[in-house]
Amino acid sequence: MSMKNGKILRVNLTTKDITTENIDSGAARSFLGSKGLAAYYLFKELRRGVDPLSPENKLVFMTGPLTGTKAPSSCRFVVCTKSPLTGAWVDSSCGGFWGPELRFAGFDGIIVEGRAESPVYIHISDGEASIRDAGFLWGMGTIDTISYLRERHKSDRTVRVATIGPAGEKQARLAAVIADMRAAGRGGTGAVMGSKKLKAISVVGHGKVPIADPQKFNSLAKEAHKENKEDSARMAAMGTASIVKLVNSTGGWPTRNFSESQWDEAAEELAGETFQKTLWGGGKYVKPCYNCPIRCAHLAVIREGKYAGISDEGPEYETISLFGPNCGIKSREVITVADRMCDNYGIDTISLGNTIGFVMECVERGLVSLEEIDGVDLRFGNEEAFLKAVNMAGNVYGNLGRLLANGVKRAAEKIGKGSEKFAMHVKGLEIPAYVPRAGHGHALAYAVADRGACHLRPWLYGAEHFFGKLNPSTTEDKPEAVKLGQQNRALIHSSGLCQFAVSEDMLYESLLQMINAATGFNYTVDEFRLVGERINNLTRSFNCREGFTSKDDTLPYRSTNEPLPTGPQKGQVIRLSEMLPEYYRVCGWSEDGVPTKEKLEELRLDFVIEDLY
Amino acid sequence: MSMKNGKILRVNLTTKDITTENIDSGAARSFLGSKGLAAYYLFKELRRGVDPLSPENKLVFMTGPLTGTKAPSSCRFVVCTKSPLTGAWVDSSCGGFWGPELRFAGFDGIIVEGRAESPVYIHISDGEASIRDAGFLWGMGTIDTISYLRERHKSDRTVRVATIGPAGEKQARLAAVIADMRAAGRGGTGAVMGSKKLKAISVVGHGKVPIADPQKFNSLAKEAHKENKEDSARMAAMGTASIVKLVNSTGGWPTRNFSESQWDEAAEELAGETFQKTLWGGGKYVKPCYNCPIRCAHLAVIREGKYAGISDEGPEYETISLFGPNCGIKSREVITVADRMCDNYGIDTISLGNTIGFVMECVERGLVSLEEIDGVDLRFGNEEAFLKAVNMAGNVYGNLGRLLANGVKRAAEKIGKGSEKFAMHVKGLEIPAYVPRAGHGHALAYAVADRGACHLRPWLYGAEHFFGKLNPSTTEDKPEAVKLGQQNRALIHSSGLCQFAVSEDMLYESLLQMINAATGFNYTVDEFRLVGERINNLTRSFNCREGFTSKDDTLPYRSTNEPLPTGPQKGQVIRLSEMLPEYYRVCGWSEDGVPTKEKLEELRLDFVIEDLY
Repeated sequence: MSMKNGKILRVNLTTKDITTENIDSGAARSFLGSKGLAAYYLFKELRRGVDPLSPENKLVFMTGPLTGTKAPSSCRFVVCTKSPLTGAWVDSSCGGFWGPELRFAGFDGIIVEGRAESPVYIHISDGEASIRDAGFLWGMGTIDTISYLRERHKSDRTVRVATIGPAGEKQARLAAVIADMRAAGRGGTGAVMGSKKLKAISVVGHGKVPIADPQKFNSLAKEAHKENKEDSARMAAMGTASIVKLVNSTGGWPTRNFSESQWDEAAEELAGETFQKTLWGGGKYVKPCYNCPIRCAHLAVIREGKYAGISDEGPEYETISLFGPNCGIKSREVITVADRMCDNYGIDTISLGNTIGFVMECVERGLVSLEEIDGVDLRFGNEEAFLKAVNMAGNVYGNLGRLLANGVKRAAEKIGKGSEKFAMHVKGLEIPAYVPRAGHGHALAYAVADRGACHLRPWLYGAEHFFGKLNPSTTEDKPEAVKLGQQNRALIHSSGLCQFAVSEDMLYESLLQMINAATGFNYTVDEFRLVGERINNLTRSFNCREGFTSKDDTLPYRSTNEPLPTGPQKGQVIRLSEMLPEYYRVCGWSEDGVPTKEKLEELRLDFVIEDLY
Repeated sequence: MSMKNGKILRVNLTTKDITTENIDSGAARSFLGSKGLAAYYLFKELRRGVDPLSPENKLVFMTGPLTGTKAPSSCRFVVCTKSPLTGAWVDSSCGGFWGPELRFAGFDGIIVEGRAESPVYIHISDGEASIRDAGFLWGMGTIDTISYLRERHKSDRTVRVATIGPAGEKQARLAAVIADMRAAGRGGTGAVMGSKKLKAISVVGHGKVPIADPQKFNSLAKEAHKENKEDSARMAAMGTASIVKLVNSTGGWPTRNFSESQWDEAAEELAGETFQKTLWGGGKYVKPCYNCPIRCAHLAVIREGKYAGISDEGPEYETISLFGPNCGIKSREVITVADRMCDNYGIDTISLGNTIGFVMECVERGLVSLEEIDGVDLRFGNEEAFLKAVNMAGNVYGNLGRLLANGVKRAAEKIGKGSEKFAMHVKGLEIPAYVPRAGHGHALAYAVADRGACHLRPWLYGAEHFFGKLNPSTTEDKPEAVKLGQQNRALIHSSGLCQFAVSEDMLYESLLQMINAATGFNYTVDEFRLVGERINNLTRSFNCREGFTSKDDTLPYRSTNEPLPTGPQKGQVIRLSEMLPEYYRVCGWSEDGVPTKEKLEELRLDFVIEDLY
């Protein structure tokens, strides 16, 4: 098999067929890579209404044109599918080393189809792929699975492994894919992998990523490295946790199931500064992803007390906040232990922390009896109960484990009694660690993001609260900012770079230049912008085909009806209905939120028109 | 630095001096290697009465002449020191890959001296060694430490790591050294490593082990491989757990702190056959040590229930029995979870299971109040309390953790109230998983073994109960059998081979031939036998110098005074005092159990005479 890139590996686990195909060069130019290209394949190949956990759903692992190159933080790949959590589109991005290694092995992506009869894993080595028995690996946590497959396929390079843990095997709708201890966390991609009885994909390769204009590319990459290194001292020191205090002081820190937005005492305990001084051992021990000058990933070691001897890669801002204040917890150790458990079980910490916070509120309000949840006294701040809940969710054990492992929307449906009013999700995806009521911009982004409540498409909390670019209290300018931000994020998530390495400023300058040098596409700025808009319209169309309309672009009742009790935005509710029509208008979508024929034609998404109209 | 072998690396952590020295060829011939050679160095270099946890104690890692060669199961190294658990000699043997790698890196052994100011690890790569900062690794469990150092020193070979966990760092006297998830478990070598602030030794090497007569050696090794493979189907299928039912049916299975010796129901649940069908996934997934045709090491995966997602290398017969019936536990999952925890914390499962069983008996008898042990209801069969106890011991947390982590002798001293009568140890080392009262031979071996109660110097349970070679009910022939067995075991433990690869039959035939071909020593059978006796007299003399005499060759009160209530040997107590004088006589030792001048002269142990007389 040739080592030339631009190839997709297609593995059908039902028929055991393994084929390789070239990526259509037109498609590559139209959809760039990673998220964009995966959306292209999945829109074309999935039929409307497919059951996400059936063999007919497909699971796509895809890299971008910069993955595995000399560009800074060129580590990313995405896992895409129809989400079993939301029924909508999901792309879940992941760092580490697996994505680059896949390209070194000669493939830009993998499309997994069908369902194996019994557990298998896929091993890929320099252009060759095989389906292998994973009977024994089934049931193993991710840590041992990775270590086991590394040993089994030992070579002169570290074998990179993307795997599910027990949560994915049991098709928990919050299950993640874990690649070398980084997570493609959101939207239940791990459950789809589990439904296909695919335990892991191990990869090793010795090839190089082809670059159209190597000389130019290398010089651009070098410059970008330098800039990133200069900008990222804070990230290197404290990772994403560096913003804990800032989010708390600006009144957006999810506390007790998003009912409040500040908790000063916990913010001190859980600040990046405090983690750095304590569990992160001064912050000098990092485990950076592939080729990353930012180095945000810290290693935590618990040296004293009850949990001594446990270490963890992380936790990140999101995990700290959802496991911390959102569950009434302020112990770094407890959060670290829980993070480690979730990595090993393969379950999304954001969604799980959100769901636990919700059940805690239900328990406190008397909507759930302890008998219904196996006697675990799951109240805000009960550390032991919290850890028990994480454990039970991770291995989908007992009533409580099953309740939590399938997310907050289903938990609210099961509990009933009006609890859906404070079930903090959009389209079924749990809201991450910025309180919606703290700002209209990021709240609108939650409401309309393709995969459900996502803080990264775009991340407007900074613009609203840190940089003074947007006023969090008004609806003004938010529709435009969200639309533009979505396009930009679609480009970043399709490039193969980490979002932390691409500021909005450099998107149409150095990123575009690097992409042109790498691909030879020679996009103009306008063309490039259009790629972003195209991808965003494609995933929106995917959702529309599945029946999602404006009625699903919502926020929880709590966000739109209960005045925020604390913080600078005290008293605020989100006036979503004022923003939505304008948002649809700037997107070129109908009042129902469906991309118009004209917009789709403009974006040359003809194959979408056929399906939608 | 040359890659020629026969070199010792000496690392002084106080002065940071790293030196290399040749092994004296006379010493190598006299003491063979591994245990024997370590005893030679430690006897000569340690002063009488040295505090085991002081910088003046030394810690010796030593391989044997066959370690890392083509001989079957040539994986072993020993960790030797003055034991902080017993105050006596200890050699603790370990399989895996670390020992062979040390030889590939150009060293036969390492002598660690002094104490670092702050935590360090030693990295060895092809003849070069350096002392490095381990500030961050301090506090980490062994699993993450190994993974972290492998990543940090990534090369074309898997870096092999011997490390301590939190138990060793906190100088728990039951702390083990863990090398790639195999344990040098017994006697607290991990505590000595911790006292030196030495977290780990990582090794990688590309050299070959020198062989005097390669052609002859290779042909002998090939033959030995074949024989081992034929003999070991049962071991490959069920590991050491294959004997669970046999030991139970012959009435030697430690049950409820050795108070009973049979538990049929648990024997069914915990038999190798049952593990094989369940957690071991049919038994086909093994993780064999270096170059091993026997492949006794199984991988357990818990797939269902409360503990789903946890996997473990093991557990072995000893762990199964001490954590199982000895603590009133019959759950494979609970034992497996506990085994995994102990590996990660770096604590000896044999000693810990014995000590927990003891405290359970104390609780049941009302000698310990729950307040004294942090409210943990540690009674026979309480699975949750048992796991909590293992966890607390492993990270030396709370009163209970501290009580357990320092072994049964100290626990009995603390609890008092006559509890020492059922504290099951000899010289402070906890008795392993054969009830002493079941047979006079293995009971005598417990009483007189150099490191305290050891089931392997020699293993007479088989001769007494499986093979009909010795009558377990009489004192006859036992002193001779123990003496001969000790010599033989000293040879095996000094050879670098695993004891499972060397039957007593082949000791003076194929093992001797392989050693001669490898070393060029050309031992006669008599000379070789003398080496075994010499080593055994040397470690005995080490103990005598520390003040150990016949008064320490004891068995617990329970073994010599309370008739065994169950099994084929029902009613039996061990008549130790009838056997000891004869044992000393056949050894050529005084009535006090001290090697006579004449014996020492005969064995050419002149440097010992100077110290003892």
